[in-house]
Amino acid sequence: MYSSKDLKKIIKKIFLKHGLKKNDALISAELIVYAEIIGASTHGVSRLKMYCDRIKKKLINPKPNIKIKHISQSISHIDADNCIGFVSANLGIKQAISNAKKSGIGMVGVKKSGHYGLSSYYIEQAVKKDYIAICFTNAPPAIAPYGSKKSLFGTNPIAFGVPVKSRIPFIFDSSMSKINRGKIRIAEKLGKSLPYGVALDKYGELTTNPKDALSGVQLPIGDHRGSGLAWMVDILCGVFTGSSHGGKVKDPFEDFSGPQNIGHLFIVFKKNLFDKGFDKQIKLNIQRVKKLPRKDPRKKIRYPGEKKYYNFKNNLKKKIKLPKKVYNELQILINT
Amino acid sequence: MYSSKDLKKIIKKIFLKHGLKKNDALISAELIVYAEIIGASTHGVSRLKMYCDRIKKKLINPKPNIKIKHISQSISHIDADNCIGFVSANLGIKQAISNAKKSGIGMVGVKKSGHYGLSSYYIEQAVKKDYIAICFTNAPPAIAPYGSKKSLFGTNPIAFGVPVKSRIPFIFDSSMSKINRGKIRIAEKLGKSLPYGVALDKYGELTTNPKDALSGVQLPIGDHRGSGLAWMVDILCGVFTGSSHGGKVKDPFEDFSGPQNIGHLFIVFKKNLFDKGFDKQIKLNIQRVKKLPRKDPRKKIRYPGEKKYYNFKNNLKKKIKLPKKVYNELQILINT
Repeated sequence: MYSSKDLKKIIKKIFLKHGLKKNDALISAELIVYAEIIGASTHGVSRLKMYCDRIKKKLINPKPNIKIKHISQSISHIDADNCIGFVSANLGIKQAISNAKKSGIGMVGVKKSGHYGLSSYYIEQAVKKDYIAICFTNAPPAIAPYGSKKSLFGTNPIAFGVPVKSRIPFIFDSSMSKINRGKIRIAEKLGKSLPYGVALDKYGELTTNPKDALSGVQLPIGDHRGSGLAWMVDILCGVFTGSSHGGKVKDPFEDFSGPQNIGHLFIVFKKNLFDKGFDKQIKLNIQRVKKLPRKDPRKKIRYPGEKKYYNFKNNLKKKIKLPKKVYNELQILINT
Repeated sequence: MYSSKDLKKIIKKIFLKHGLKKNDALISAELIVYAEIIGASTHGVSRLKMYCDRIKKKLINPKPNIKIKHISQSISHIDADNCIGFVSANLGIKQAISNAKKSGIGMVGVKKSGHYGLSSYYIEQAVKKDYIAICFTNAPPAIAPYGSKKSLFGTNPIAFGVPVKSRIPFIFDSSMSKINRGKIRIAEKLGKSLPYGVALDKYGELTTNPKDALSGVQLPIGDHRGSGLAWMVDILCGVFTGSSHGGKVKDPFEDFSGPQNIGHLFIVFKKNLFDKGFDKQIKLNIQRVKKLPRKDPRKKIRYPGEKKYYNFKNNLKKKIKLPKKVYNELQILINT
């Protein structure tokens, strides 16, 4: 049990011990604790050992020489030099915001990056500055392309955010698989079963066993539709930015044969480019949805980001409980 | 039975009779026949009577005064003045390509538009000129937001295309619902049932009856995931461009109380902004997917756009067969 403040300090210290620069250790700790606070423990401390292992094996570069190339006022390209993904993604969204500020729209591609945690963290930065933002990242094989029984696309999330003139930003962030890979890993760590119908084993049969699912296939949302969306993300983040793609992004937990070489793409633009009434209309939009008849009368209709916001607010002052296995991993990292 | 050439002439003539300008009648006929040729009859002649009805009732403006406002080198805004959607979308993609040519990236928002047929037609124009393109359009209520039992979002397609140095362009085009609304309409017209699990009736029960589905709810892909993607498209196309949104886009077949006021968003960019090896890498990407072990060994793995391409090639010289009901509607339009 740790306060979020203490946990952040501990993680920062661990990253510093592994050679990360001060600001890089800070942002990395920030992202990991953010995931724990909003209840996305799949992207929290359970990944810390993996990041440290990859640094030790020189697959994450703790002292990267990150280069930003400005293609135009709107467009920039970042070579992340195999840094820890948090750092390059944080730089990417900041650059995209800065480009959008100058020219109305900013697009930033990042290559040679790694797993960057939760897309919502980066989207939120743009939304809080009153911009609309879309971001994509590719990921190691998890989803089988439609028609195949072998995984190749990552869960390849699409994230989107928009300022809504409320304390609670509208932030949608979803993988293209029926279940997140992180959730399967957590289930595996805790010895729990998966829901039925979300994954296949390596023989192509439905499975609820997380271990079998990890060596098998995660099912995409909407069959060919989700498969196509995941392919789009792979092309935009892999082929387009100059990163790995087509099943070549390395699994950070299992493949230590080289850096991950993940790509990200950030697109940010001003909310009122076309219509000065944006603030009024987005409020109306959300009101209309919220007033609809509910499937379960006891459950309010929420917009994407609300659950995250309330989790953050409720949990910020609470102690963070780590599962036994994750806690033990953390102790080893603290003491070695 | 018509040849595609004859059918195009007939439809052009019908649109001219309804007051459309020559070029507008031509592009509209082109889009409708394109849908028939590639086998997407849901967007073909079965919609012609609807377009004509809306022109007669002055809900589609046959002589629009379309205005293009240039916000920056990259960004333009089109006020479509309630023209037939084909015309403004065709203008939108052309402007986005032209902006991308100048500045690397083009973004065009279209407001006061209508149903524009198949997104793939517009995406293909950009792809054939060697650009990457993304397009979105919102649509009349079809999908219930997650947690609600009433439809509000449209099927809100996301379309994406990328040049692949092959005769066959990579074009993904998918609604965010498990089944397209057009397919339900065709099933209704032909007295057929829907597959199980794709739609609810107005009481929230699963139904295979197309009539009940049309007055009920189409289910989104991946529950909250598809619902969130449809919401994103509604915000980008409705709120952001200054069009109708939040359930206010009018159903073209049923609601004659005013123009549809649909919005579209086109984002187009140069393929080699970040990496000069794009052509080589995209080829490799597709090769890797195609080489995967197949679910059904007899069925090749295809990329989005292949099926469309082969349909087009195979059907172009064939006669187009129209269902009896659609054929009869066409005869009335020819003879009145």
